[in-house]
Amino acid sequence: MRIDILTLFPTFLENSFNYSILKRAIDKNKVSVNYHDIRDYSANKYKQVDDYAYGGGAGMVMMIEPIDKCIRALKKQRDYDDIIYLAPDGEKLNQKIANTFSLKKNIILLCGHYKGIDQRIRDHIITKEISIGDYVLTGGEIAALVFCDSIIRLIPGVLGDESAALSDSFQDNLIAPPLYTRPEAYNSWKVPSILTSGNTKKIEEWREQQSVELTKLKRPDLLDNSSS
Amino acid sequence: MRIDILTLFPTFLENSFNYSILKRAIDKNKVSVNYHDIRDYSANKYKQVDDYAYGGGAGMVMMIEPIDKCIRALKKQRDYDDIIYLAPDGEKLNQKIANTFSLKKNIILLCGHYKGIDQRIRDHIITKEISIGDYVLTGGEIAALVFCDSIIRLIPGVLGDESAALSDSFQDNLIAPPLYTRPEAYNSWKVPSILTSGNTKKIEEWREQQSVELTKLKRPDLLDNSSS
Repeated sequence: MRIDILTLFPTFLENSFNYSILKRAIDKNKVSVNYHDIRDYSANKYKQVDDYAYGGGAGMVMMIEPIDKCIRALKKQRDYDDIIYLAPDGEKLNQKIANTFSLKKNIILLCGHYKGIDQRIRDHIITKEISIGDYVLTGGEIAALVFCDSIIRLIPGVLGDESAALSDSFQDNLIAPPLYTRPEAYNSWKVPSILTSGNTKKIEEWREQQSVELTKLKRPDLLDNSSS
Repeated sequence: MRIDILTLFPTFLENSFNYSILKRAIDKNKVSVNYHDIRDYSANKYKQVDDYAYGGGAGMVMMIEPIDKCIRALKKQRDYDDIIYLAPDGEKLNQKIANTFSLKKNIILLCGHYKGIDQRIRDHIITKEISIGDYVLTGGEIAALVFCDSIIRLIPGVLGDESAALSDSFQDNLIAPPLYTRPEAYNSWKVPSILTSGNTKKIEEWREQQSVELTKLKRPDLLDNSSS
């Protein structure tokens, strides 16, 4: 997979991707992540990329021209599956969407900043809008990091043990069962005895039952959606 | 506000906070962010912080002892409003929760890694579990970054212009209206003429109407919840 990210803060993203499983995925050539500084595409000698909003109001708006020029240049070099804008009012990211995007070949991510981007970019250039949740962030870079992390770890060969991802929360519309590790007793808090029984079949049943009960308690909506 | 973050990757977080509005908030003393390497609290000479799961299964589990020791040491120094674990099955972060946490004085964030943390930490030590969305990430560090960014930008005096945050999506259960900036025409794509009319009252009405229509179209659930 190839990911091209348009940003005003390429250094932040480069530092962040130089970390943990993301770095390992890049080193293993499972993914290549490329950063494009939107300022490099400004027509202005001051490298201006934002301006006041038409109609007034607080906050600056990112201009269409530098973004359009950068994306045109990329599209000349290869086909892209999607040009994604990370926006709080986009389609809500979930594990199913992450699974889908982990199979794509080439994607572009646009990180907004300041008050937002010129609407014409959203109307004419972007093919998909993704939100990581119902909250507002300083900029799209942190959302891009979340999106990339959620999809890159699902690319086959990235996690050390693929079965670890299969038992994650949401992969089967259930919350993962509780986990315990050594020591068996800490203060007066003990590991459930079933887990040290050695009875693999009973342990599996207990975990399944715990998953279903936790999901009913905390996230009954996941069970309602399990057929979707 | 003081934020203490327990992590296995303090350098990643330090690099990430050295950026944009987060850095400005720290420089202005609006917030202090402190990183605690969980490995420093390991009783083991190999600095071990994780072990196999009782009952078997893929993936390592973070041990209770180093985390408990680190949190005890912090609690001796001051009172904390909340000890937060960032987990995919926690309470879903939204703008209302971000507003609430932006008013807290001292909070601890625990970043999980590997398969997860020993359940006894969640049962006995954690006071609040927060999820940034229905997807699984490599580790809690990226979620901590999202959580901190969403709350720090709401601390009074952090954003250059407070009114910019008031018109953000979700602050009033509405999606923000479309934004436009120069040039007025790009290719054949024009800015809506109302925005260049100079009629402030009509512009406000148009924006309000656009917000309501966009919310009805994209996120009718926000309108249902507007009384909550």
